[in-house]
Formats: sequence, C-alpha cells, structure tokens
Amino acid sequence: MLLGKVIGTVVASQKDTKLEGLKFQVLQILDIAGKPSETYVVAIDAVGAGVGEVVMYAAGSSARQTGATHNTPCDAVIMAIVDAWTLEGKTVYNKSEEG
Amino acid sequence: MLLGKVIGTVVASQKDTKLEGLKFQVLQILDIAGKPSETYVVAIDAVGAGVGEVVMYAAGSSARQTGATHNTPCDAVIMAIVDAWTLEGKTVYNKSEEG
Amino acid sequence: MLLGKVIGTVVASQKDTKLEGLKFQVLQILDIAGKPSETYVVAIDAVGAGVGEVVMYAAGSSARQTGATHNTPCDAVIMAIVDAWTLEGKTVYNKSEEG
Amino acid sequence: MLLGKVIGTVVASQKDTKLEGLKFQVLQILDIAGKPSETYVVAIDAVGAGVGEVVMYAAGSSARQTGATHNTPCDAVIMAIVDAWTLEGKTVYNKSEEG
Amino acid sequence: MLLGKVIGTVVASQKDTKLEGLKFQVLQILDIAGKPSETYVVAIDAVGAGVGEVVMYAAGSSARQTGATHNTPCDAVIMAIVDAWTLEGKTVYNKSEEG
Repeated sequence: MLLGKVIGTVVASQKDTKLEGLKFQVLQILDIAGKPSETYVVAIDAVGAGVGEVVMYAAGSSARQTGATHNTPCDAVIMAIVDAWTLEGKTVYNKSEEG
Repeated sequence: MLLGKVIGTVVASQKDTKLEGLKFQVLQILDIAGKPSETYVVAIDAVGAGVGEVVMYAAGSSARQTGATHNTPCDAVIMAIVDAWTLEGKTVYNKSEEG
Repeated sequence: MLLGKVIGTVVASQKDTKLEGLKFQVLQILDIAGKPSETYVVAIDAVGAGVGEVVMYAAGSSARQTGATHNTPCDAVIMAIVDAWTLEGKTVYNKSEEG
Repeated sequence: MLLGKVIGTVVASQKDTKLEGLKFQVLQILDIAGKPSETYVVAIDAVGAGVGEVVMYAAGSSARQTGATHNTPCDAVIMAIVDAWTLEGKTVYNKSEEG
Repeated sequence: MLLGKVIGTVVASQKDTKLEGLKFQVLQILDIAGKPSETYVVAIDAVGAGVGEVVMYAAGSSARQTGATHNTPCDAVIMAIVDAWTLEGKTVYNKSEEG
C-alpha cells in the first residue's frame, strides 16, 4: 500500500453500472518523508474518507477485496484512514495534531 | 484509476477471438494538474467514450470486470466518462464548459 | 495495453512444462508518437506475429486470457497485430504503407 | 519480490473490517547494492518482523496468499525475514553481523 | 516477461510456511541491449537456474502458475533459462558461447 492525501473528487455520471453509488476520490501520493509527490491516483472510497485526510490505498486486484468494490472495474481503493505514521521513532503524521 | 484523454484509436483485424467487436481507444494520461503527459495506454471502451473526452480507466485484472471485457486478454478498460474533476475546491476539468 | 514492435526472439529449451511449444517474442515498446523507446518486454505470441510487425500486448493476469497462455506462468501476451494507429486524425502507423 | 528495511509503522483505527488486527509496517526499499532507496511501501506483516529488520515482500495479488492476508484489501505483504543476502560471492547483508 | 542474470541468493529461515524449500534468486534485470541495469528482483526458481545464467521471469499473479509456486506469496518466478536471445538478426546472448 502507499499513503496519500485526499485532495479532490471526480464526478462521472456515465460509468460501468457496477460503479453506481461509489465515490471517486483523488489522492496525492505521499513520499517517504510524508511530503506530497507529483503523482496521483483516483481511488474508490471504502471507509468514508474526507478531503484533507491522509489515507492508505490498495491497488490492483486487492482493490476489489472490500464490500464496496467487490467485482467492480476498480483498481485502487481507500481501505484505511491513517491516525499516525511513525518512522524511526519520529512521528511523520498524527491526525489529532492536524488543524 | 488514472485519468486520460481519448486521442485516437487502434485498428487490429488479426486479434484474439475474444476481442472481436471491441473498440481500442488510445488515452493520453493526464497529470495531477490535468495536463496531458507523455505517457499513453490503449484501453478497451466499455462506456461509449469518444475522441476528445476525458475518461477514467482501470488497469490490470480489474480491466476484465466489465461486461464488455470479461475473460478477455485486456489489461486496461475505460470504465467512466468524467463530468468534472475538482482539486482543493478548484475545478480542474468540467465537461460542460469544454468547447 | 501498450504498442510494441517485434524485434527479436528468445529461445529457451529449459522452461516450465506449461510453456512447451510457445513462442517468445521480444517487443520494443513504442512511445505515444510511435517511436521505439528504450524499454522492452518479452511476450508470448497468441496471434502469429512476425518480426517487424507492430503489435499490441496485454500484461499481468490478462496475459493468461488467451487459448495459448491459459494457466501458464506468462505475464505478457501479444493479443493483436496492429493494422492502423490514428492520433488526433493523423495516421501514426499504417501497416499497408510499410515497406 | 523486493527487499526492504522495516523503518516504521502506520496506525489506522478506521479501516476495512477484514484488516482488523493486522500490522502495517513501513518498508524502505533497498537497491541492488543493499542501500536504502527513496521509495517505500506499506506492507502487512505475516512473519513477525520488527523495526530495523531486512525483509522480503510480495506485491499484488500474491500479497493475499498468506494466512494473515487472505481475501483482504492488501497489496503488499512481508513474507520472509532475510538472514543473508549474497551477490556474486560477496555478502551484502548478514543479519547475525548486524548490531 | 523480462530477462535477468542470476547474480545471487537470499536466505530466509523465517518465512511464510508455503515457501519452505523454495530457492530465492537475485536477478539483475537486463536492458534491451542485454546489459545489466541497476534494477533487480528476487524470484523463486522453478527451473533449476544457477548463478551466472541468463533467465526469464514472470511477475505478478502469473508467478504463481508453476508447480513450485502455486498458491504461495510469490510475485516473481524464474520460468525459463535462456539459450539464445536474438534482436534484428543479431545474437545478443548465446549461452553456448559464454565462458
């Protein structure tokens, strides 16, 4: 999995029927230092994440292993909202300390 | 998923029999700012997208999860036509505002 | 899928038994302008492609969705021979015009 | 598989229900010389690895082939703790020689 | 598939139980000219390859399609030992001509 920040949404009314009702979130992928990179992914939200939150997403066939995404043409799913991220004893991100 | 713009087509008469009747669209992949990148993918169209439209595609095994692509040797499928794409409150793309 | 040009072959007598009789083609991957890139892939040929032809290949589990490659340890398959490739109204490649 | 060093953890209380009880480790991916690269992956730990250890991880659908990760939305799993890593007769890493 | 040269091994006594008895080989991935690149992959050996040999490996779920790797958390498998590799009529590699 990689970590990303929810920075936006995609609206698509004309889509595969299995995708009805699902929410497409745009994630800016974070680098190893927790800084936003220039890369993104559009992921289906399986955990109720909101814009501004740091999340974890799974890609590939594993993206279809949530109740929301089972058997859908989805290759990226938000499967967790990050509370804290620690590297070598230092806190890179702590949700409760964010404004 | 990633976002792409339909910029062309590939015609292939000699192909795996399961691919008969499917349409191959060339997508120019868009970067996080909505600008066309130098990378592309050829995707099978499951939603009736036309040249010039901004679409979303799924890759890998998830590309076989549409009615059109089930059990086919296809690793990229257009599964949605994008109406709008919003980042941090700003509209990056809005189909109804395009010429 | 991506587009590639068949530029060579790999011969391997000692291989997984499921791969007996299959042909390994070396593809030079083409960029968005139809120019050969520095990247390659070795793909199993499911459509009878020859050296010099422009083809389309599928990667990952989708590479096992042809009759030739079903259940084999193959992650790339040539599933179509390209007749023509058109971008924004211009022909990037047309097989019948090649020498 | 690639090799990585466990350098941290991710805590996520709000996650897909199938992921309850699993541990998310942050791996810094090692390059061919055994040096830490700038890339990372968050992997579920299936073997009891600790911070500072060099491990091997599997990505994609293969990440779901451990008892811990079966049928979960997980695309990276630590499936081995590395004892030794030898290249061209030279030891790149030997766990027993580490401090 | 890509081509690689076996340059080493990884020993891991603490691993997922399905991986008992399997051999982890380190492959240096070869570029289109047959030169070693700076990238590597650790692959399970399904064909009895030795250090110094040029091999072909399959990645992703296809890596589980050999008898040795079926249902294991393995995302890369050596599925062929290369005898010869020819590009545009020129021999890039021929095992019988190697020292």
